[in-house]
Amino acid sequence: MVFSKDNMTGIILALLSSVFIGASFIIKKKGLRRAAVVSGVRASVGGYSYLMEPLWWIGMITMIVGEIANFVAYAFAPAVLVTPLGALSIIVSAVLAQIILKEKLHPLGILGCVLCIAGSVVIVVHAPQEHPISSVKEIWYMATQKAFLLYVGSAIVLVFILVFYFAPQCGHLNALVFTGICSLMGSLSVMSVKALGTSLKLTVEGKNQLIYPETWVFMLVVVVCVVTQMNYLNKALDTFNTAVVSPIYYVMFTTLTIVASVIMFKDWDGQNVGSIISEICGFIVVLSGTILLHVTKDMERSSSFRGNYTPSSPTLSTRLFNSNGESHKHEQEDELCSEEADSRRQDLQV
Amino acid sequence: MVFSKDNMTGIILALLSSVFIGASFIIKKKGLRRAAVVSGVRASVGGYSYLMEPLWWIGMITMIVGEIANFVAYAFAPAVLVTPLGALSIIVSAVLAQIILKEKLHPLGILGCVLCIAGSVVIVVHAPQEHPISSVKEIWYMATQKAFLLYVGSAIVLVFILVFYFAPQCGHLNALVFTGICSLMGSLSVMSVKALGTSLKLTVEGKNQLIYPETWVFMLVVVVCVVTQMNYLNKALDTFNTAVVSPIYYVMFTTLTIVASVIMFKDWDGQNVGSIISEICGFIVVLSGTILLHVTKDMERSSSFRGNYTPSSPTLSTRLFNSNGESHKHEQEDELCSEEADSRRQDLQV
Repeated sequence: MVFSKDNMTGIILALLSSVFIGASFIIKKKGLRRAAVVSGVRASVGGYSYLMEPLWWIGMITMIVGEIANFVAYAFAPAVLVTPLGALSIIVSAVLAQIILKEKLHPLGILGCVLCIAGSVVIVVHAPQEHPISSVKEIWYMATQKAFLLYVGSAIVLVFILVFYFAPQCGHLNALVFTGICSLMGSLSVMSVKALGTSLKLTVEGKNQLIYPETWVFMLVVVVCVVTQMNYLNKALDTFNTAVVSPIYYVMFTTLTIVASVIMFKDWDGQNVGSIISEICGFIVVLSGTILLHVTKDMERSSSFRGNYTPSSPTLSTRLFNSNGESHKHEQEDELCSEEADSRRQDLQV
Repeated sequence: MVFSKDNMTGIILALLSSVFIGASFIIKKKGLRRAAVVSGVRASVGGYSYLMEPLWWIGMITMIVGEIANFVAYAFAPAVLVTPLGALSIIVSAVLAQIILKEKLHPLGILGCVLCIAGSVVIVVHAPQEHPISSVKEIWYMATQKAFLLYVGSAIVLVFILVFYFAPQCGHLNALVFTGICSLMGSLSVMSVKALGTSLKLTVEGKNQLIYPETWVFMLVVVVCVVTQMNYLNKALDTFNTAVVSPIYYVMFTTLTIVASVIMFKDWDGQNVGSIISEICGFIVVLSGTILLHVTKDMERSSSFRGNYTPSSPTLSTRLFNSNGESHKHEQEDELCSEEADSRRQDLQV
């Protein structure tokens, strides 16, 4: 477990990024709540008063700072290290939601947090060292090797099939279509972001890479990939609820990014089998923790579970009223309730 | 990740032991069910017809074989490796329950299984090598070193306090008392079992250890510790339900055993920090998986969750009938229902 200075910088940046992104959700939500109280009109019913609320802007800025930290982290450390650490932002927002927004965390949600941390530690401990890169031409060489071109080709073909064949047919029925498109594009985004980030890092260090056309090609690829990814992520979130989309997206996106990074940057070359197995296990643990956090978030929200917010001896009608009333309390980003909660509610509607 | 031959033997034995113990629960349960069908009297209401049922005896024998395999595993591999692998028996019984008894596994239970496996793999990959032991006198020396005597002393004092002060006061209110006693004794059991197992292994290999009084002392300690441990485990299971006792016991017992083993056998000497951290994380992951499996087992059993076993459009009264009727289906070992299931049921009794 010897960390290079670059890996250390990358880990710290990735952790900071998670703290900022996790906190930004809570700050924005607090801002939305305050705006709703001041104006009496909620964002979800068309109000824009939150744009006048400084807290909401602080949240936006926090998020942008977090995204920049994440971008820079990719320039320093391997994607197999930086990408899974993104899960820690969920913990930060879960913990802050409990402290600041007084939202109760489900006991299994705490287990989810513990798992995300344990898995992340295993990943960090076994993080591969990156081959030092001295020019964008080197990255270009890695990006144009046969194996990686095959990956890019397959990803693009799959995206086209999903966009033109499956999306019109069952995009609105099956959450895998839109999340699949943005996960495939996302893995290409991360690779190009890493290439661009490394070029800019070298430029800042005095080795100007902007004179090479490769840098500009990577920049173009970043824009195309990120825009497509964001477009389909929004479609997915518009069509399905967050609790369904988030874990699927996180699992697919992180897995594909790791596959892409292992092919392009040969992260696992020179690592022993034990380290690779540990990394994969750590990754599975982080994924499981994420899923657990997302699934149990909705258990708490459907107020029928454990009977929060209800009088001590409720009747069925007051329970239903409360469970509907409760869902109205949630803000813009999270007023959706999962299939689980829905099925639970149907359970009660006898 | 280089395994010594002894470690490999230990791992295989520990895995076999988990398969046998996990399967034994299911076979015994199948036997109990069949006996109840034949005689019409259930074991839980005082029937002994299961003693005439060959399946029940096969289950008992399977369990004994599993326990022996576990005992022998300790003679070959470190306790920090063998003990956590015990969690895999839960997976085996969960999977077999689904296949043979047609009990449905909760989706989060599957996640629990995945976690137990991922955690176990991390532990196995980082298992420490054991110093080769050539005589029971060496083990005696390790057992009488100052640090370990301090551990044994503290454990015994704690057990006495728990038995004579806390057990009469709040043993029937707080599940930590009885499980605490059997976990503390359990850690001493494992250490003495390991000492005895190693002596017997050496004896079988031709180096007779039965001539040394130390071997007999270890045998006496094994008997005293195991009897005390089993006595209080039964008290715990009698007083509280399995779903509460099992995870608490597993967490405390495994943690204390690892602490004892690290002190006595110096398992972590000569291991690098990364491996130790990975082992601890792997251990936390296995614990989390175990907890998840136990907690969700009861979610499935209270049939109100996801509405299994119920007609497609049930009324509240049929649901309640079903949820009670369902709980009657369970056999001797697991007819208890957790606080969670109870609270869910209260939820429905409006």
